[in-house]
Parts: sequence; C-alpha cells; structure tokens
Amino acid sequence: MQRVYNFSAGPSVLPQTVLEIAQKELLNYENSGQSVMEMSHRSDDFTNILKQTKLLLRRVMKIPYNYEILFLQGGASSQFSMVPMNLMTKNNKADFIITGQWATKAYLEAQKYGECKVIASSEDKNFSYIPKVSKEDFSKDSDYAHICLNNTIYGTKFTEIPDTGKISLAADVSSCILSEPIDVSKFGILYAGAQKNLAPAGLTVVIIRKDLIGEPMQKTPTMFNYGVHAEKNSLYNTPPCFQIYMCKLVLEWIESKGGLDAMKILNYKKANYLYDFLENSNLFKSTVRKSDRSIMNVTFTTKDKEIDAAFIKEAKENQIINIGGHRKVGGMRASIYNAMPMEGVKHLVEFMKRFEKSCKL
Amino acid sequence: MQRVYNFSAGPSVLPQTVLEIAQKELLNYENSGQSVMEMSHRSDDFTNILKQTKLLLRRVMKIPYNYEILFLQGGASSQFSMVPMNLMTKNNKADFIITGQWATKAYLEAQKYGECKVIASSEDKNFSYIPKVSKEDFSKDSDYAHICLNNTIYGTKFTEIPDTGKISLAADVSSCILSEPIDVSKFGILYAGAQKNLAPAGLTVVIIRKDLIGEPMQKTPTMFNYGVHAEKNSLYNTPPCFQIYMCKLVLEWIESKGGLDAMKILNYKKANYLYDFLENSNLFKSTVRKSDRSIMNVTFTTKDKEIDAAFIKEAKENQIINIGGHRKVGGMRASIYNAMPMEGVKHLVEFMKRFEKSCKL
Repeated sequence: MQRVYNFSAGPSVLPQTVLEIAQKELLNYENSGQSVMEMSHRSDDFTNILKQTKLLLRRVMKIPYNYEILFLQGGASSQFSMVPMNLMTKNNKADFIITGQWATKAYLEAQKYGECKVIASSEDKNFSYIPKVSKEDFSKDSDYAHICLNNTIYGTKFTEIPDTGKISLAADVSSCILSEPIDVSKFGILYAGAQKNLAPAGLTVVIIRKDLIGEPMQKTPTMFNYGVHAEKNSLYNTPPCFQIYMCKLVLEWIESKGGLDAMKILNYKKANYLYDFLENSNLFKSTVRKSDRSIMNVTFTTKDKEIDAAFIKEAKENQIINIGGHRKVGGMRASIYNAMPMEGVKHLVEFMKRFEKSCKL
Repeated sequence: MQRVYNFSAGPSVLPQTVLEIAQKELLNYENSGQSVMEMSHRSDDFTNILKQTKLLLRRVMKIPYNYEILFLQGGASSQFSMVPMNLMTKNNKADFIITGQWATKAYLEAQKYGECKVIASSEDKNFSYIPKVSKEDFSKDSDYAHICLNNTIYGTKFTEIPDTGKISLAADVSSCILSEPIDVSKFGILYAGAQKNLAPAGLTVVIIRKDLIGEPMQKTPTMFNYGVHAEKNSLYNTPPCFQIYMCKLVLEWIESKGGLDAMKILNYKKANYLYDFLENSNLFKSTVRKSDRSIMNVTFTTKDKEIDAAFIKEAKENQIINIGGHRKVGGMRASIYNAMPMEGVKHLVEFMKRFEKSCKL
C-alpha cells in the first residue's frame, strides 16, 4: 500500500502504528469478543479505556490535580459558547486577543453572552504576527481572557503565554496540544478539538481548573454545563467511545516516543527544516513574522497565484496532499502535526527544491 | 476469534461485515493512501462519503425532499435543548408525552426554555405501557409535541404515531431508527443518537422539515442552530467523519439485506421469538403491556433479584453480554437491534431454556 504524505490542517495524519493497532483490534478488543465501537459505555472494558486515557493525558501533559479533564463532543466551535456560558458568570465580561479566524469566532460567539473587549489584534497585517500585550492591558474585572494559542490558518503561535494577572486565561489549543510541553497551571481552561494531535474528529478535550466549574448562566443546555460532565466523569451521556480509545492509543504512542519533550525536539526539527529552506528559497516565502512562527502549521507562498496552484497540483502527483493554504491566506500550508514523520517533511522539501528548479528553466 | 453476543442497549453490536470492511480500509480508504480518520473534511474523498451517506439515508428511510438531514454531535441529550431552542419560538409552548426516562429528560430540559405541558404519562405503572392520546389532548397553540418513539429502558414503543393535529411532532427515535419503515411525513423533526442502529457513538442524525428551520431563541449557541448546520450541509465545523463513514457502511448493509421492509420482518421475527418464549416460560416474564412491546429492547424478569443476578452472571459465561436491565427497571433487557442476528436471539433463548430447567432442579 502506498500511503500519502497528508499535510491536512485537520482532520489530519495519525501515527501509522496507531492505525495498525486499531485495525488489528477492530473486531475484537483485548479478547473481549467485540469492537470498541460496540462496547457499552458503562461496561468495565470501556470505563477502563476512559480511565486509562484520562490518566495518560494527565501524565503526558503533567496536568495538575486541581484541573479536571473532560471528554466532550462538538469541537472547539462548541467551546466558543460553552466557555462564556460557564465562565462569564461573575462580572459578565471577558477579554480577547484576536490572532486569526478561530480567535475571532470565539470573540463573536461570546458577545451573545456578555461584554467582550478586544485587548489586541493582528488583523491589520492579516494575522501574520502575534501582538504584544502586557498585564496592564487586561481588564481588572473580566471573568477571563481568551486566546488561540496556535493559529492553524495563519501559521502563528504565542511563543510566550500572556500574563493576564489575576484573571483566568482560556485558550483554544486545538492545533498545538501535545506538540510540546505546556505549563497548564498558567491557564484557567484549555480546550482542543481532537482532530489534529489527539484522535480522529468527534472528540473535544477540555482541561479546566476545578474552581472555575460552577453554576453556568440560565438557559445553558445541560450538555454545555462543565459541572454536569465533571460530576459524571464524562459519562453523563454516551461519549464518543471510539475516539477516546484512539486518543489512548495516540497518547501511548507519544509516551513510547519519549513524551512531550521528545515531541518538541522532533517538531522543532521538522519545522526548522522547512523554515530554513523557506529562508533560502528564491521562490517560496514564509507568510509570518519569524518570531511568531508556528511549529505545527507552516504557511508559505510564491506570491504568484498561478505558480501556487501549479505547485499544489504537482504536489498531489508526488504523494503530497492537502498542501493548499486556507482561502483567507492563499498559498500553501504544511500542517506538520506530531504524526507527520521527518521523512514527510524531507519529501516535501525535496519536491519544493525540484519545483523551484523547474520554475527557473 | 470468538465474537460474543452483545445485547447492549447502546453502544451496541454492529454488523460483522461492516466491521470487516472498516478494518480492511482502515489505513487506506479506496486507494486514497489514507484512513477515513485522517481525511480533511473538506476533501473530495470525504465530501463524497458525506454525500453518499445522506443520499443513502434519504433512500432507505424514504425521507421526503422537504426534510433536511443533518449529521451532528452531542447525542439525543443535546437535542433535548436544541429542539426547544429552535422550535419553541412562536408561542413558547410545547406538549410532552412521558413514557420513560428519555422522554422525561426531554421534558425537563425544555422547561428551561418555555411552557411545557404533560399531555399523558405512563409513570403510574413504571412506564410499562404507552398511554392512549387523541388529537384533542394536544394544545392548540403549542409549538410542537414531543415523544420518545421507542423507550430503550422500559421496552415499549408507540405502535401508532399520535395524531397531533396541526402542531408538529418531534420524536426521539434513537433506539428504533432503521428498525422498520417509518412515515417521516408525520413528523416535524426526528432525531437519533447513532449508537444503536446507525453507527458508533459520537454521531447524531436529525431529520427536520425545512419550514421548521428558522431563527432560534436568543443566546442559542451557534452549534445548536439547525439553520447554521443546514446551510453548511453539516460542515459548519469538523463533523465526526469516521462515524459518518460507518453510517454509510451500515446503510449499504441494510440496503443489501433488502432495506427497511426486510429489517422489519427480521426484527419482528427476532422479537416474537423472544416474546413467544417469555409467554410460555414459567420463570421469565415480560415487563411490558403486550400491545406496546418494543421490537428493539425486550425487557423481562424472573421477579426474583437473586435469580436475575445469577442469570446475568451465567449468561456472560455463555457469550451473552450486557443482558442486565437498566437500574430503573431491574431484571434483564435484550437489545436486539438490526445487527443482532437471529442466531444470537436463538442462542439467548436456548440458554434461557437451559437456565430455567436448571432452576427447577
């Protein structure tokens, strides 16, 4: 079988060994005589999977014990409402740093529920950088401040976690969770759609400081109440069992590779390999400020739409898929999540070199 | 490999041939070089899967073209809020028939959003029957009336769809969708968690008459707005791609078996085989009124808790799993969804006969 190099921004490539284990166990998980997909979510087999996944995530991410881990559905898009409905309950105010489309969506959705203030934005330069902020920029009385830690579409990331003073920091970490160690204690709540670094699409992971779990706003759907899910250990209703199992396999794979320290080394190596090439290329250019470059989503362009289109087309003929940039940025984007091997990045750079050469002829 | 007979109420058994196809394609879907779990939800490969699944569901269920099909997340529990938030918008009133735990949950959740009236209830006899209602019982000015068409926990089903007159009927069909033909045109909205007859847990299917899709209540989360999902063809955000693919495989399997007419024949055959045995047994008794018996969830008991417990334990040693009843009913429950083969039901009855005989000794 010829596997392709899939640079999709999400859903995205999964570790091949993880897929192979899932394939092997698909009709019979650990001699249970059933697929994980068929298991009652109340059965011992599945509650064990859930327990192990939670333990693994806590260990791999070094999540302090005053944080709850929730396995939910609905993606980051549901968190855009769930965070304000649960957290904007004291002063009905929140602060936002706008660094791209997802940060903007979180801001617009929260406006339904309270007073929202933009602290900083990089919209002036098409979100190609991360704005600098200091503690004094944040409101004293906001219930929380929200950021998107890594911007999938624009290829930027916060290299430093903003100091929000006394107010809690909420962060969408969908496209950078598990890519490197992160100091969870600096956040009030972290959330991530699983489909980039955790598992297949359909699972949302929420990591929330326990003291932030309280009575949500009136009319909050029960399914949008963190307290309900925390109390029921993510088993208030039927969870996306198969994705939780896949998340377990992915976490086991990460541990076997050396955990997040090893992931960080590998991910910087991959990203730098690409960025170094971009810096020396006469054809391809990075679209973001050097100091704010993402290690997960590398955006670049030839600055010529026709050449970009030709590149994307030819790439596909060379087993390189989903390399097109988001329509808001154009050009190209190589999403190089944990499961993208170094050889995939090398394969891409080799192709870029050949393409650049052929353009000169 | 020894596969067990899994009588779980959900997540539940899947057709073995479906699992085998999924297993075969797990690392390489139709020569795409990737797993369905890795595909961008905007890719041609996946949008084709989505399109085919929708077409198949429309064809198999004979869903009229004035109904929209949505593939969502969050289970029926999310629909308990989503239905009132979207439909209780004219007169802010709804009617409810209470036939079990899920019907009750739908009623309690809707009370957050408007005036809710109980039209009928079978709580007086622990939900062992379906109350009779006539058109006159329903409010003239309610925005909709809600029922749970098949009651998973209690083992009853509506054998006739209530005539609600001019008000729209909303129904939770989680545990009976695809079990037999259903006249969709009699409903305003149908919804189902996938984990019984459709696919693995993590997918919710909504079938809604297009004229009911409108402006939801203020403060409705964007992800709880039917209009948003309808406009974006279930691709507003990343859907649970793998479950949609599994749903496609299940629908193809149903078509290959002769569609819902064939499912109905098989399901009545299976259910009657069990009910006939129960009627003639001196040990086991059905817990529900004969006229209201579910063909998907067969509840029964020996009326002796210790014997029930012994039965459940011994069943497990005979490859019969998840046969215990819900804690609200006790006793036993055999969920015999589409994917449970006739031989599984025969295997169960043979074991029940042996158990009954051994009890007499």
